[in-house]
Order: sequence, then C-alpha cells, then structure tokens
Amino acid sequence: MRRAVALAALSPLPDANPRVGCVIVSTDGSVLAEGYHRGAGTPHAEAATIAQANADGVDLRGATAYVTLEPCAHQGRTPSCARALVAAGVARVVYGQGDPNGAAAGGAGILADAGIAVEQDAELARQGAALNEDWTFSVTHARPVVRWKFAATLDGFSAAADGTSRWITGSTARADVHRLRAQHGAVVVGTGTALADDPQLTVRDTDGTNLPTQPLRVVVGDRDLPADARVLDDAAETLQLRTHDVDAVLEVLHERGIHAVWLEGGPTLAAAFLAAERVDEVLAYVAPAMLGAGRPAAADFGAASMTDLRRFDLVDVTSLVTPADATTPAQTDLRLTLRPLATREES
Amino acid sequence: MRRAVALAALSPLPDANPRVGCVIVSTDGSVLAEGYHRGAGTPHAEAATIAQANADGVDLRGATAYVTLEPCAHQGRTPSCARALVAAGVARVVYGQGDPNGAAAGGAGILADAGIAVEQDAELARQGAALNEDWTFSVTHARPVVRWKFAATLDGFSAAADGTSRWITGSTARADVHRLRAQHGAVVVGTGTALADDPQLTVRDTDGTNLPTQPLRVVVGDRDLPADARVLDDAAETLQLRTHDVDAVLEVLHERGIHAVWLEGGPTLAAAFLAAERVDEVLAYVAPAMLGAGRPAAADFGAASMTDLRRFDLVDVTSLVTPADATTPAQTDLRLTLRPLATREES
Repeated sequence: MRRAVALAALSPLPDANPRVGCVIVSTDGSVLAEGYHRGAGTPHAEAATIAQANADGVDLRGATAYVTLEPCAHQGRTPSCARALVAAGVARVVYGQGDPNGAAAGGAGILADAGIAVEQDAELARQGAALNEDWTFSVTHARPVVRWKFAATLDGFSAAADGTSRWITGSTARADVHRLRAQHGAVVVGTGTALADDPQLTVRDTDGTNLPTQPLRVVVGDRDLPADARVLDDAAETLQLRTHDVDAVLEVLHERGIHAVWLEGGPTLAAAFLAAERVDEVLAYVAPAMLGAGRPAAADFGAASMTDLRRFDLVDVTSLVTPADATTPAQTDLRLTLRPLATREES
Repeated sequence: MRRAVALAALSPLPDANPRVGCVIVSTDGSVLAEGYHRGAGTPHAEAATIAQANADGVDLRGATAYVTLEPCAHQGRTPSCARALVAAGVARVVYGQGDPNGAAAGGAGILADAGIAVEQDAELARQGAALNEDWTFSVTHARPVVRWKFAATLDGFSAAADGTSRWITGSTARADVHRLRAQHGAVVVGTGTALADDPQLTVRDTDGTNLPTQPLRVVVGDRDLPADARVLDDAAETLQLRTHDVDAVLEVLHERGIHAVWLEGGPTLAAAFLAAERVDEVLAYVAPAMLGAGRPAAADFGAASMTDLRRFDLVDVTSLVTPADATTPAQTDLRLTLRPLATREES
C-alpha cells in the first residue's frame, strides 16, 4: 500500500485527472506489476499496471490489486478500470479513496458484482485522498478550489501609495509563491493588476527561468491589455475573461479541467471573490513592515460592521527567512494559511 | 548567584527603580543574609540585606556579596549602597549588570578604592540586565521605551467602518494584552480613541476586576473628554497631555520615573509615534479575519513609496488560542513582536 501511494505521488500536478498509483501482488506477496497515472490522455494507473503485466507476460489471475483510488466505472477516453481488473482476473482489490462522484456509479460495485473481493482501506483512503485534495474538491463542488495569495505589510498594504511594491516580502517568500503557484492549473488576476504591475505570471525557477509546464494565465475584466503586456507573451497560454462574475470565471476554468485556481489579486478582484464567498484558502505572505497607506490587499467587499467580519481558521503559520545579502538585512516573513470557518462553509 | 537573580525577580514591575537582588555569603559558603528591592521609596537590595544582617546580629566582615546590579555610588533617597557595603566590612563583591549611568560614577570604583575585591560576573550581568530591560533603556535613552500594541484583522483594520471592534481578537489574546499592559508604567491613547471607544484603560484580571496597582492612564490631544468618560473614573490616575509632540509626551512620562509606555493607539497617535521613530517594539495581535474596510491600525505616516517602507525585525510569533464556547468557534490569534531594524536604530 505504501508503494501504491509513492507511485501515485509521481503523477503530475496540476493535471485534469487525479493522481493514482497501483500495485498488483501475487498470493505469496511478490509484486507482479505496478504503475501510476502519467496525466490526462494517458492510461489510468490500473490500465498502465495491467499493460505492464501483459508486456512482461505476467499472469494476474488470483492476484491482489492495491490502488489508491476506487477503480473507475465509466468508459471515458480510456476504458473502465474496474472492468479491466475483472478481465485481468484479479481475485481481490484493496482501494483507498472512494470515487467522489458517488458510490452508486462506483467501480467497487462492478468488481463485487464480478465476484472479486473488494475492500476499502482507511489509511490508504486517507493517503490517497491527500494526494488529490484539489481534484476531489472540484468533483464535489463542480468548480475549482480557489486559493487567494497576497503579500502585504503587517498593516495590510500590497503596494505603496505610488504603486511600487518591489519588494515587500523577501526572496525566500517569493520563491515559495512560485512553488505553490506551479501546483495550480490557472493563475488569475484582474485587469487592474495586469495594467498596473505588468506581471508575467509565469512559474519561474529560483534562477528566474520559466519552468517547462506553466499554469494557464487568466486576466479577468473588460479593459483591453496593451499588445506588449508581459502576460500576453508566449511563455504560457493566456485567457482574458471579460466578465465581473466570479462564478462565470470558475465555470470556464472548471470546463477546462482546472481543479485549482491561484488568485493573485488585485484588491478589486480579491474583494469580488471574498464577497462571493469563493475563497477556499488564503495564503497570506506577511512582511514585518508597515506602510500606513497604499494599495490594500483586498478592497472594500461590503463589510460595514463587526457582524460582517469575515472570519477564518488559521491552519498554518510558516516562517520564511531570507538571509541578509550585501545590500539588505535578513528578513523573516510569515506565510499564514487560512480557511473559511466550517460553519460558514456549511451554511 | 541564582538566588540573587530569583530575589531580584521579586522586585515590583513596573517601578521607578530597577529590580535588584542581593545575597551575602560567608567564607564557608553559607548564606548570612539576603534581600531585594521592594520598590521606589524603600531600601535598595544591598541596604535591605545589610539591615537584615544587623537585625539578626550577623557579622558581615570578610563575607562575599552577590548583587545583580552594580551597587549604587550616589546618595539619593537612600544612602549609597557601595559605601554601605564598605561600612559592613565585606571582603568581596560580585555584581551583575553594570550601572548604565556610566562606569565613572559607578559603585565598583568606590568598592575597589576601599580595598574590596570587586568582580563583574558575565552570566549574572546577563540575567540581571534581562530583569531590567526597560529601566536600562530609559536610563540610556533618557526616555521611556515605547511598545505599540494593536489588534487588527489580517488586512490591518482595528475596527469596522461603523466603529465597532468587539471583538476582533479572542479572549485569550485580550487577556495577554492585560498581562503585558500591567508591566508598563503608563498606558497611552489619543483623544480620538478615548472619545470613540470610551475605554477604561485599566489592567483587569481574567474575571474583569481591576488589579490593585494600575499604570498611569495618559490621553494625548487637545479635545476635551466628557466628565463621564471611563478613562476619568477613579480606578487609576489619568493625565491628559494637550500636545501633538511625541517627545513632549515622553519627556513628561520620563520625569515621572516611567520607563515603559504601552501605546494603544488609535491610528493617528500610532502614526505620530511611527513618524517620529519612537516605536521601540510592536506587539501586533493579528486575528484570522478580514474586513476590507474600516479603521486602520495606523494612519498614513507619510510613506508614499517603497523607499519609505518601515521595516522591522520579527523577533517572536506566539499563537493565542481561544477555545470554542457556546456561541463562537475556537479562534487562533497571533501575537507578533517586532523591533525596528538595528540599522535604523543606529542611524
């Protein structure tokens, strides 16, 4: 089971499909075949494992398959994995996370109906689900999860009054942003930010070079961007959505198979997502600095009184230390991770 | 030496005088007498210890005195402790923190001139000084240390747009404020805060009762307060300073023997202290919540561009967890402690 989880972790992120690993073991406990899903358009983990066994001339009859996600029931771009396991003649299937599309349509039933011993392992379920949090969210909510990232001073400003903002946080915090941004299918900003800051919105290595795989760049708003805007360069695909409807934005991205959105602001767009209650996680990079005035992290989203206070659970605090260099002293920024209160999410 | 430090920690805080402990030991290592300073107007630690020995009929000749602070040279409300030790006939004095008023005027010289063996112990110095940070600051800077406390949302608001602010932080964070407020000689607010929030500004126990010893309450600004303002009640002494000059405020408090000021805002007064570079430590209580609009923690203090960014060292992050109760979920606030960058302080 540990091997299946390790294999699943090799699956690409972000991707339209979940990360899945599979190990098929003989009755004497030896591994007959293993595989994982290499991304949308390639075989599922079970299919890849069975194909490997076939190529090696290994007979899977009577064997036990460990798979981190309930084998799929449906025939999509690839055949049903539950039916493939039946055809391969395995005697037992131990799976992890249940299919979030609903047990009724699940592959576990197909396997059981075929006389295969089927069990869900709780620990495998926990570990398998942990690898697919965003995919699971998007399946169950029919929209991508939204992570709002902002970097600000302790008093909540993301730029000075004249628009300058380089750099409020240290280089270690900025590298952390690139690392997390890379795990998202889309990076979203408003036209205001695109026009004011002219960001490239790509995922870069620590030496500043763009990584080979890039999230979709999304600019939300009606205003036209200049042809030489950096966000329109050929470093990655860019989509401009001429709408102010947060759910319309998420619907377009959901249809493109994007499970996680990295919302980078600016304040107006962040306020729109907050007002729509479409911020599922906040990544706040807080610098030990004050400005007293400037561009806020979030614009007014309509809170007039304490009864409108938007509360979150603080789920993580991480220190990000940038060492001193020749011109600047060391700087310790904080990354705070917050999630909407459960009561609010359930309401 | 450990006993001397433990005794010093019994001295009151806040107080006009430093916290000092003294232990006098015979040549065979047995304790002959011990004492500590019980606050301004009472005998110094050495005098208290010698008086105890006299009352017990103990002969101190040839003994060794351990004292956490260099014995005073000058005769003030109480006689010079260095001369008292000479008169008592001790043979050796081991002291901790050096007199920050300057070695030239120090008691160590008086002792050495009298033929007493005098040494400063580094570890005793460190521990003794740690008990008197605020006193030492005020002696060396000729003004009180200023700690600016604010409680705010993650986006920097201390109250909602309609002025409501109860409660942004949880009860655990608010109790922590009272605990720290109690260690200061004065609590300072602007007339704006006094008029808007009508705070009592006292130090209260967890059950809400006022403690017997209270910091001086100071209201800064020209506007008159209504006679029924809570800050004017008889729970503690209150001083209104009709000035906008930060250094004038600190001078008045320094002359009253106050070594540490707890600045509670509001935004205008905080901005004045920031602009004057008279904030020596920031205690930021940050709630995991957003408002998007409202009363900021600090008003505009003149920063127009990133070159005006006021940077601090983040020296501590403490989580303050308020458990859930019948009406509200659990809340984790953060207390961030920041100090001005050394480069700034030295400039």
